[in-house]
Amino acid sequence: MTKEPLNQDEARRTIDCLRFLAADAVEQARSGHPGTPMEAAPLAYLLYRRHLRHNPADSHWPGRDRLVLSCGHASMLLYGALHLAGYDLSLEDLKNFRRLNSPTAGHPEFGKAAGVETTTGPLGQGLAVGVGMAMGAKFLAEQVSDELFNYRVYVLCSDGDLMEGVTAEAASLAGHLGLGNLILIYLDNRITIEGSTSLAFSEQVATRFLAYDWQVQQVEGENLGEIETALDAAKADPRPSLIITRTHIAPGAPTKQDSAEAHGAPLGAAELAATKQAYGRHPDKSFEIPDEVRAHMAHCRVRGARLQELWEEQLRRLADDPPPGLLNWLRSRDGGLPEGWDRNLPEFSCTDGPLATRQASGIVLNALAARLPLLLGGSADLAPSTNTLLKGERSFSRSGSGRNLHFGVREHAMGAILNGLSHTPGLIAYGATFLIFSDYMRPPMRLAALMGLAPIYVFTHDSIALGEDGPTHQPVEQLPGLRALPHLHVIRPADANETAEAWRLAVERRDGPTALILSRQGLPVLDRERYAPADGIRRGGYVLAEEQGELRALLIATGAEVHAALAARELLEAEGLGTRVVNLACWELFTAQAQGYREAVLPSACRARVAIEAAATLGWERWVGAWGEVIGMHEFGASAPGAELLAHFGFTPQAIAARVRHLLARLN
Amino acid sequence: MTKEPLNQDEARRTIDCLRFLAADAVEQARSGHPGTPMEAAPLAYLLYRRHLRHNPADSHWPGRDRLVLSCGHASMLLYGALHLAGYDLSLEDLKNFRRLNSPTAGHPEFGKAAGVETTTGPLGQGLAVGVGMAMGAKFLAEQVSDELFNYRVYVLCSDGDLMEGVTAEAASLAGHLGLGNLILIYLDNRITIEGSTSLAFSEQVATRFLAYDWQVQQVEGENLGEIETALDAAKADPRPSLIITRTHIAPGAPTKQDSAEAHGAPLGAAELAATKQAYGRHPDKSFEIPDEVRAHMAHCRVRGARLQELWEEQLRRLADDPPPGLLNWLRSRDGGLPEGWDRNLPEFSCTDGPLATRQASGIVLNALAARLPLLLGGSADLAPSTNTLLKGERSFSRSGSGRNLHFGVREHAMGAILNGLSHTPGLIAYGATFLIFSDYMRPPMRLAALMGLAPIYVFTHDSIALGEDGPTHQPVEQLPGLRALPHLHVIRPADANETAEAWRLAVERRDGPTALILSRQGLPVLDRERYAPADGIRRGGYVLAEEQGELRALLIATGAEVHAALAARELLEAEGLGTRVVNLACWELFTAQAQGYREAVLPSACRARVAIEAAATLGWERWVGAWGEVIGMHEFGASAPGAELLAHFGFTPQAIAARVRHLLARLN
Repeated sequence: MTKEPLNQDEARRTIDCLRFLAADAVEQARSGHPGTPMEAAPLAYLLYRRHLRHNPADSHWPGRDRLVLSCGHASMLLYGALHLAGYDLSLEDLKNFRRLNSPTAGHPEFGKAAGVETTTGPLGQGLAVGVGMAMGAKFLAEQVSDELFNYRVYVLCSDGDLMEGVTAEAASLAGHLGLGNLILIYLDNRITIEGSTSLAFSEQVATRFLAYDWQVQQVEGENLGEIETALDAAKADPRPSLIITRTHIAPGAPTKQDSAEAHGAPLGAAELAATKQAYGRHPDKSFEIPDEVRAHMAHCRVRGARLQELWEEQLRRLADDPPPGLLNWLRSRDGGLPEGWDRNLPEFSCTDGPLATRQASGIVLNALAARLPLLLGGSADLAPSTNTLLKGERSFSRSGSGRNLHFGVREHAMGAILNGLSHTPGLIAYGATFLIFSDYMRPPMRLAALMGLAPIYVFTHDSIALGEDGPTHQPVEQLPGLRALPHLHVIRPADANETAEAWRLAVERRDGPTALILSRQGLPVLDRERYAPADGIRRGGYVLAEEQGELRALLIATGAEVHAALAARELLEAEGLGTRVVNLACWELFTAQAQGYREAVLPSACRARVAIEAAATLGWERWVGAWGEVIGMHEFGASAPGAELLAHFGFTPQAIAARVRHLLARLN
Repeated sequence: MTKEPLNQDEARRTIDCLRFLAADAVEQARSGHPGTPMEAAPLAYLLYRRHLRHNPADSHWPGRDRLVLSCGHASMLLYGALHLAGYDLSLEDLKNFRRLNSPTAGHPEFGKAAGVETTTGPLGQGLAVGVGMAMGAKFLAEQVSDELFNYRVYVLCSDGDLMEGVTAEAASLAGHLGLGNLILIYLDNRITIEGSTSLAFSEQVATRFLAYDWQVQQVEGENLGEIETALDAAKADPRPSLIITRTHIAPGAPTKQDSAEAHGAPLGAAELAATKQAYGRHPDKSFEIPDEVRAHMAHCRVRGARLQELWEEQLRRLADDPPPGLLNWLRSRDGGLPEGWDRNLPEFSCTDGPLATRQASGIVLNALAARLPLLLGGSADLAPSTNTLLKGERSFSRSGSGRNLHFGVREHAMGAILNGLSHTPGLIAYGATFLIFSDYMRPPMRLAALMGLAPIYVFTHDSIALGEDGPTHQPVEQLPGLRALPHLHVIRPADANETAEAWRLAVERRDGPTALILSRQGLPVLDRERYAPADGIRRGGYVLAEEQGELRALLIATGAEVHAALAARELLEAEGLGTRVVNLACWELFTAQAQGYREAVLPSACRARVAIEAAATLGWERWVGAWGEVIGMHEFGASAPGAELLAHFGFTPQAIAARVRHLLARLN
C-alpha cells in the first residue's frame, strides 16, 4: 500500500497526546518513568500509524511486524500507542497503570496486554530478543514462505540497553547474519539515572555498529520527515539498521527536560501542568484524547484489517497447493506437534553403554529433528562438546536460514535469542552450553519462565565429573540455582533412555522452559528388565530399584549419581539392608504429582534417607527430611580426572554405603 | 633500564621450548588445549623476558606489572613461561598438569601457582578483571603514589573473550576512562571450537575498539620485531591499547595447524612428533629444556630483583616523610584495617525509622568511607536508588581517580572489575545494583568466591515489596541462588542497626565476598531495649524476641519479613502461644556456629516452625525441618504498590499467625 503524505498537524496533535497520556499515567500511579515516553512519542506515532504492518484487531496475526520496547521502563509509551491504535487496551487500563491485575504493568509484560510482543525491563534483553525474532522471521521465510513471512522487527532502545553486554553479543551476531529485517532505534538522550551519560558512556555508538556491519543513520528525534526517510532507508537496506535519534528526555518540561530527575519519577503536579501549558494544552486536564486524534488513529485498524486480509488471501492461495514447509507450519503454528513426532525416538540397550547422556541427547535430538522440521537450535560455540549439531542440516548464516545455529561464544545473547525464536509461531528452539555457563544466561532464562516461553536448554558437563578443566568449569551451585527459578523444569536423566524421555518432556511442554542437565562422562545404559522403565521420569521421580524385604534405607539421586546409588544399594542389600533407589530427575514434575504418588515413592515412615548429587546441597532437605543426609558438594571442585574427583569428594558406592550405615546407626 | 637488543636465535629457541612444554604437558595429561599456547609462545616470551616489570622471586611485589591470561584454557602457556622465568613452579609441576593437588590446574587458579594473577577460564572474565586491575593501579597512583604504582596490566585474549558481552562492557568503560596502563593482546587465530570464526564472528574488531577510544595496532604473531614495536607504542599511548596479533593455532603442526581440532585436545603422539621434527627438535623427547634456554631466561630473575630493589628504595625514600596516602596504604596493603576504622559507625534509634535498609546502608557506607580511605565503589547506574554515593568524594573519571565509580548499566563488568580492584593490594571495593540484576553478574561473583576475594555487593530492592516496577524487577529466586554459591556470605539485615553490623562484617571479611541484601521500602528501627541487640547477626542468626512462657512456635525470618514475624508474634502471644522470633540474616555465618549455639537458637524440640521470607523457598527446609512450613514465593511477583503485594502474597502478620495456628493444630 502506498503511504499517505505526512500531515504535520495531525501528527503533532497525536504525538503530544501520547506524551501526556504517559506523563498523566505516571503521575496518577505516583511512580514510573515519564521522560522517555515523552521523548519517544514521535517514533511511536510514526511506527504505529505509518510504518508497522500490524492489525490492532488481531495482535496474534503471524505476518505482523513486531515492535519491541527494549527500554521497558518507557512502558507507558507502548500502552498509550496501543490504546490509540485501537488495541484491546482501554483508557481505564491506562489509568490503572501499575495497579494489581491491570494489563498496564510497570514494565511491559507479554500476555498481559495485547500488542506487547515480549516482556522487557531488564536492559538489553529486548534488543537481543528482537534479534531472535528477526532470525525467526528469516527462518520462516526460507522454510515456509518468503511471501508470508517478510515481516520486520523494530526495536526501541536506550543508552542503558546499549551499555549492556548482551546487546553487544546480539548486535554482533545480527550484523554477522545480515538480518536486514531488523531495525533498531536508539533514543540518544544523553541522560542516565546517575546523571549525564558522559559519566560512563562515551563510546562512538555509530562506529561500533558499523564495525558490526550494520547500516547506521542519525536523525533528530523531533524531525518527523527525517525519521521517515531514515525508516524507509532502513527497510531498503540489506543489513540490520541502527537509527540514532537525538532526543531530549521529557521534552518541553520547563525545569526537568534533559535532567536525570525526569527519568524514573513523576514530573510532579506543578511541572506537569507547566509542561502542558508549554504545549498549549489545558494544565488541569488529564488523560485528554482529542476527538481528532481518535479519528486520525482509527486508520490503524482500517489499514491493519486490509493488510491482514491481503496476507490471509495469500495464505489461502498458497494453501491450495501447499509447499511442504507450509503444511508443517500450519500444523505447528499454535504449538501443536505433528502426528508421530516422537515415534522414531531411539531406544538404547545395555550394550550401547557406556554412553554419556550428552551423547544420547545428540542421537535423540537428531531423531526428533527428522520429524520436527521447525525445530532449530545450536550452541554457544560448543556443538561438538554438547552434541547438538543436527547432522546433514545447513547452518543458519547470511546466505541461508538452516537449522543449525552458531551463536558464537555468546551465552547471554543465546538465551535471549532463544526467547525471540520461541516467540515465533511454530518454532521449537534449543540452545546448548556447559552447565557452568548457564550463569551467563540467567536473565533471559528468567524471562522465558516469566513469559511461559518454551525454549529447551541443553546443559552438558554437569558436575565435577567433567574432570580436568577444573573448578572454573565444574558446576556446583547451578543445579539449585536453576531449581529456584519458578516455572523452569530442570531434568537430569540418569541414562540414555531417560535422556530420550527428557527430550520428549521438553518438546511436549510448550508453555514453559526446560533445562536438560547432561553428563560429560559415559554412563551405563540401565537394564530396564532389572530396573523400572525409563518413562518413570515423566513423573519427575520414581522408584528405580525396589528394596528387597523391609525398607531400611532410601537412596535418592539424580543423573550420574543414580548409578553410584544403585551400586551402593547392592552393597547394602548384600548386608541384608533393604534399600530403595529413587531417581528424582525432575523436582518440579515430582512436586506436581499427587500426594499419594509422592508418598508411595518416598514413604514417610522411612527416615533413613540419603540424597546423592554432585552439586551444592541447597534444597535437598526437602526430600531427606529432618533426619536424612545429603552427599553433595560443599566446596568448589578441582582439576583432576573425573573419576578421581568423584572418589575424592565422596561419591563412590562405598562411601555412600558407609554413610547409610552410619545414618542407620544414628537413627537406631 | 634500557632493553638489550632482541637476539632472534635465543628468542626462537625459547619460544619453541615454550610451545613444546605446552604440547607435551597436554599430551601427558591426555587433555587440555595445545594449540593456543603454541601460537602465543612468542608473546609470552617477549612479555616475560623483555617487557613485564616483574620479579619471579616475589610474585607479590605490589609494583609489578600484571599479566592476565583471559583465554585461561591456554594455561600451559602461562605455566611454561612462569617456570622458565624462574617462578616457584617446577618441571615436575608441569608434568603434573591437570592432576589433583597440582598447582598446574586445567585453567589458571589464583593462589595455586605463583605468578597466576587471577583465575580465568570462563571467557571474557580475565579481560574485565584486567580492566579492574588497571583501575586499581590508577587509583593507587593518585591516592598513594604515582611513582610506586605506575605498573601496567597486560591481558592476553582470544576471539571467544571478544565475543562475550562482558568484554564489550569492560572495554567500553576502559576507553571511557582512558586507562592508558592497560594493554590487550588479541590472538586472532580465526579458529573456534565449532570451526572457523567465520561461522559466527565477522565484526571488525579494530573498528569496534576504535569506537571505544582505544589505540589499535595490528601485527603478525610470529614477527617479534613488529610485536616489540607495537608493545612500545602501546606503552606510550595514553589510551588503552589493543594489539591484534594475526596468529595460527598450533603453528607448525603438519595436519592440525589452523584447525579446530588443535584447540581442545592433545595433538596425538604422531602429530606431536611430526611437529617437533618440523621445528628441528627430537621427535621422541618430551619436556625438553635446552641449557641455553635456561641460561637465557635466568635473566628474568636478575632483572626482576633489580627492578624490585629500585622500587623498594623508592618506597623507603617516600616512607621517610610519608604522604598520608602512603601511610594508609602501608597499613592496609596486606588486608589490615586502620585502627578505629569502625569507631564512628552510626547507631540508629527508633525515632530514625522508618528507614529502608538501603538508606541506612548509605549512611553507614559514608561513615566507613571517612575512616577507610582506600574504600571505593559505585553502582551500575543506580547510585541514587542504591544509596551508594560517597558524599563529597570525586568520581573516578578520565581526569582523576576518585572513589566514586560509575560503571554505567554494566552489571557484569562491574562484578569483574570489582574482582580486579580486590586483587589490588589495600583496596576494599563495593558495587551496587538491584538484587534482581545480580543475575547479570553471577560469573564474576563465582570467581570472587572461588578466589577468596572480598568485594562487597550492595543489592537493594530485595523483594516484591519494591512494588510497581513489577516482576521483571522483583527478585524471587535470587536469594537461594546466592546462598547456593560456596563461600559467599549473604546477609539480609532487618533494620538500620543490623545494616551497620552487616557492613562491619563485610569489611572485616577480607577472604571472601559478601552480599548485602537491602530493602527498598522503609522499615522500623527495632527497639533494642525490647529486642536483642543488633550485633546478634554477627552469628548469622539469633533470637530476636524470646517466647513468653513455654515455647510453642518458632518464627524464622530475614530482612523486612522479620517485622511481619514480630507482629505475628504479638498476635500469637496475645493468644497465650509462646512464640519466638529468630532472625536468620546470614545462613553461612549461622551454619558456622557451634552446634550448641544453633540448638539454643532453634531448639529441636520445637517442631512448630514457620519460616517467612519473600523469596523462593528452596533451602528453607534446612531450618524448618520435616514438619515446618515456609511462607515464601512460589511464583513471580506482580506490578502493584509494595504493601498490596505483600498482602496479596501472604506476608501480613495476620496471615503468618493463621499459618502458625494451622500448623499447631496439625501437629497436635
